Amino acid sequence: MLIRIGYDIVFEMPAEIAVVALVNVHPSRVADLREPDTLILDPPSEVHCYNDTFGNRCCRFVAPAGKVRLSNSTLIHDSGLADAVNPRAREVPVQNLPTDVLRYLLNSRYCEVDRMSHIATELFGGVAPGWNRVQTVCAWVHDKVTFGYEFAHPTKTALDVFTERRGVCRDFQHLAVTMCRALNIPARYVTGYLGDIGVPASPTPMDFSAWFEVYLEDRWWTFDARHNQPRIGRVFIAAGRDASDVAITTSFGMANLKQFIVITEEVPEAR
Amino acid sequence: MLIRIGYDIVFEMPAEIAVVALVNVHPSRVADLREPDTLILDPPSEVHCYNDTFGNRCCRFVAPAGKVRLSNSTLIHDSGLADAVNPRAREVPVQNLPTDVLRYLLNSRYCEVDRMSHIATELFGGVAPGWNRVQTVCAWVHDKVTFGYEFAHPTKTALDVFTERRGVCRDFQHLAVTMCRALNIPARYVTGYLGDIGVPASPTPMDFSAWFEVYLEDRWWTFDARHNQPRIGRVFIAAGRDASDVAITTSFGMANLKQFIVITEEVPEAR
Amino acid sequence: MLIRIGYDIVFEMPAEIAVVALVNVHPSRVADLREPDTLILDPPSEVHCYNDTFGNRCCRFVAPAGKVRLSNSTLIHDSGLADAVNPRAREVPVQNLPTDVLRYLLNSRYCEVDRMSHIATELFGGVAPGWNRVQTVCAWVHDKVTFGYEFAHPTKTALDVFTERRGVCRDFQHLAVTMCRALNIPARYVTGYLGDIGVPASPTPMDFSAWFEVYLEDRWWTFDARHNQPRIGRVFIAAGRDASDVAITTSFGMANLKQFIVITEEVPEAR
Amino acid sequence: MLIRIGYDIVFEMPAEIAVVALVNVHPSRVADLREPDTLILDPPSEVHCYNDTFGNRCCRFVAPAGKVRLSNSTLIHDSGLADAVNPRAREVPVQNLPTDVLRYLLNSRYCEVDRMSHIATELFGGVAPGWNRVQTVCAWVHDKVTFGYEFAHPTKTALDVFTERRGVCRDFQHLAVTMCRALNIPARYVTGYLGDIGVPASPTPMDFSAWFEVYLEDRWWTFDARHNQPRIGRVFIAAGRDASDVAITTSFGMANLKQFIVITEEVPEAR
Repeated sequence: MLIRIGYDIVFEMPAEIAVVALVNVHPSRVADLREPDTLILDPPSEVHCYNDTFGNRCCRFVAPAGKVRLSNSTLIHDSGLADAVNPRAREVPVQNLPTDVLRYLLNSRYCEVDRMSHIATELFGGVAPGWNRVQTVCAWVHDKVTFGYEFAHPTKTALDVFTERRGVCRDFQHLAVTMCRALNIPARYVTGYLGDIGVPASPTPMDFSAWFEVYLEDRWWTFDARHNQPRIGRVFIAAGRDASDVAITTSFGMANLKQFIVITEEVPEAR
Repeated sequence: MLIRIGYDIVFEMPAEIAVVALVNVHPSRVADLREPDTLILDPPSEVHCYNDTFGNRCCRFVAPAGKVRLSNSTLIHDSGLADAVNPRAREVPVQNLPTDVLRYLLNSRYCEVDRMSHIATELFGGVAPGWNRVQTVCAWVHDKVTFGYEFAHPTKTALDVFTERRGVCRDFQHLAVTMCRALNIPARYVTGYLGDIGVPASPTPMDFSAWFEVYLEDRWWTFDARHNQPRIGRVFIAAGRDASDVAITTSFGMANLKQFIVITEEVPEAR
Repeated sequence: MLIRIGYDIVFEMPAEIAVVALVNVHPSRVADLREPDTLILDPPSEVHCYNDTFGNRCCRFVAPAGKVRLSNSTLIHDSGLADAVNPRAREVPVQNLPTDVLRYLLNSRYCEVDRMSHIATELFGGVAPGWNRVQTVCAWVHDKVTFGYEFAHPTKTALDVFTERRGVCRDFQHLAVTMCRALNIPARYVTGYLGDIGVPASPTPMDFSAWFEVYLEDRWWTFDARHNQPRIGRVFIAAGRDASDVAITTSFGMANLKQFIVITEEVPEAR
Repeated sequence: MLIRIGYDIVFEMPAEIAVVALVNVHPSRVADLREPDTLILDPPSEVHCYNDTFGNRCCRFVAPAGKVRLSNSTLIHDSGLADAVNPRAREVPVQNLPTDVLRYLLNSRYCEVDRMSHIATELFGGVAPGWNRVQTVCAWVHDKVTFGYEFAHPTKTALDVFTERRGVCRDFQHLAVTMCRALNIPARYVTGYLGDIGVPASPTPMDFSAWFEVYLEDRWWTFDARHNQPRIGRVFIAAGRDASDVAITTSFGMANLKQFIVITEEVPEAR
């Protein structure tokens, strides 16, 4: 399957500022690209790209005052398979986790593991460890939280989501991630593209999406507390402790968003 | 100058659990060691050490149920010089910062940069950038916050410190770190040894200490919002975004602290 | 001057529930009414009215399942004078305040006086006491906070407004009220009607408004951190510690708002 | 039964300030007094007493700079009966509650009903309404929260207690009160004397105590989430929405506590 992905984002900058953008597909998906995946800036500006400590592709540049447009469109090959489901995947005791996975057990800005450990233990401590426990967390969050763009709030944390029960994509994942970490299951927040492939088209405009991954058995597995069903065509951009680590753009100063278009569409394969 | 440093910590574990300890001196100080710096466990247990993504030396092990003692005593050479002071050190525009420094501008669990940016700008936005601005932040926190062990609270954040104006070592540094980041000055939280060398002896028992570092000009510089004066004999253990990244011990389960002794003393150099 | 005031509010109730409505003009304005001020329910239901401990007129009733409409339109005489301004009004030392005013110095749900006392003292402790200090608080909040209906959030507190700097009417007043109380100036939250009399018409639909009052010299005085200018034609409905005490409607169960129309218009006086 | 109650409290005041003290027994218990119940100030100062809107006896005075001592000792007759238990007491539908009880359903500073309603409903929404449901809330809080004076924190709210699971007397009651209100059961916070009558003597020094009351059937009933058992000899001082309404002393300025002695002892009745 081929998927066209892209974005067309316009900011109005009151003054020159530094920006870091996480808009490239993740290094793990680069081999699937069928067209270049290069951030185009208008006006043009020098872009310096690097991998952060989470392994994400980051691009930094200086945005001049005035309108700044970030765009790209590329084509990626996808297996066309839905998210893997493996009810036999076991939780790994902390002592057996790879060292680079340990940080995904800790607190982060929007995931207050320290404040939610009693809550998580009460709700899910009695569920048998393993895939099914993560799935139980995921379904619980999906069932209890109501989705709505009007519920977005830039500083909303997992505990806020737990009390309010309303939010956007990122809020669902933050709550599920925090619950998992509180149960000593490594969990990380993922941003990427997710189109409507295989499901009814959404009435809302496309956006980047968020989901989460947990480490079970010997690898990371995809879960999505927003949709709570295996989906086809996720394109992984970046993973981190929470949304603060993997914001699509981080502007070090004032930046007013003027346009935000995201494209994720299956395209027929040429014969 | 030679400094004897060490610790003798006892936990009572209700059940076997995994522990990560950050008790070794930082790799940058290993060359100064005059005796081995090895975590001793009683009962003995296999210890696996590694460097985390912040560059800190971490040791992980499985603590059995019952009493577990972590101890060591080592000798380290120190310049005997007080913390460097350089009023000419300039702030680096974000676009010129090394990429590995950028993460120290972001939010973290106890440093809610997003919630404190207006406050920091109002208080310090008008101060001329550079060393003196950081020193102004450091002195402000030092003056406004009252120290007391009874004010320690495990989930206290920088905003909490800002409203309460009371706390322990880590609280002072979290508030200062958050203010700096909100001003686009990279700041990181540091744990280490700090004795009474050159100052009146403290009436309270020794503890590990915390301070913070900011990136100015071309390197990290030491500041300490708790003491707000250059000190002699800091021994760097670990740096991270905040206390959550560099806890002395992180126990993945219940661990009851029974004894906590820390030693930091200048010793005469042998001729 | 005559002002037509009224409301037409429709809820969809999933089940029968008790409702308390604060929609009548305040007892202090009853003498100004030129038409009856009676809550009309559709479907009709028995309404029991009483004064709460703050002196507000409250009406309680049982709303049946299904659509429930609350409406009324009445005519009130107004002096046509703008809010009184008295720069000579003095702050009253707490020991000289009337006892029934003391409760307006305390904490309430959305006014965390305990968490904001250091902040208020730093910002306004150095301003000479009296009318001008309250006006300084009012102007500060007005200048620092950005208005927007999209920033409304049901659990937003004064401290949240202080960190976010965005909100609706009630948020401006909560922050100003909290600052005043932290300075030992009694302050209360007021809801009422406020039309566009004497100012450019607002592009947004009419709503109930909120302002606040402070006790100076020997009485309560009107301030409004949202508009920060004397206005004509305020019609006082209710006062309390904060928005929680004087919600237009408090539903003890699920109630889905379907329509919310508020009218406040000057009408020509008949000869 | 006769109980000697009293207090001997010393503050050091940096400057003259106004103080409100709630140290008299509640008007509902005045008929039981066998000795005068008068606040004694040293140095003497004029005391003005009044009833607040909750019906509590309050005394206000101006404390001069320097040491100020508040004391009294009085004798009160008590039935000697333990707190009434009535498993048949029913919850009253909100529409049938007396109007003066309604305010005990609302939010207050330390009882964030709005943030805890989903949590309360999940935990206790399925329990049959009535006495037993309140008792279930009370026992849940008692079981889940650990008592310790070192866990006291002046701004701790019910949600904080829910996440931390640690606290003092007032924290237990705040959490239980909030849960009840979220279930539409009127609940109020009570301060008073509670000695060791009928139970093993506590190793900690006497203090004022807190408990809570809920309105069931046709009256207020005593519950105590800290002890969770009927007790003998409670002497009611004051009730309010939460601790902020009924602080033993509220000082409108700096006041440093130097001594705090409370006495509650059964004394033999004279023949």
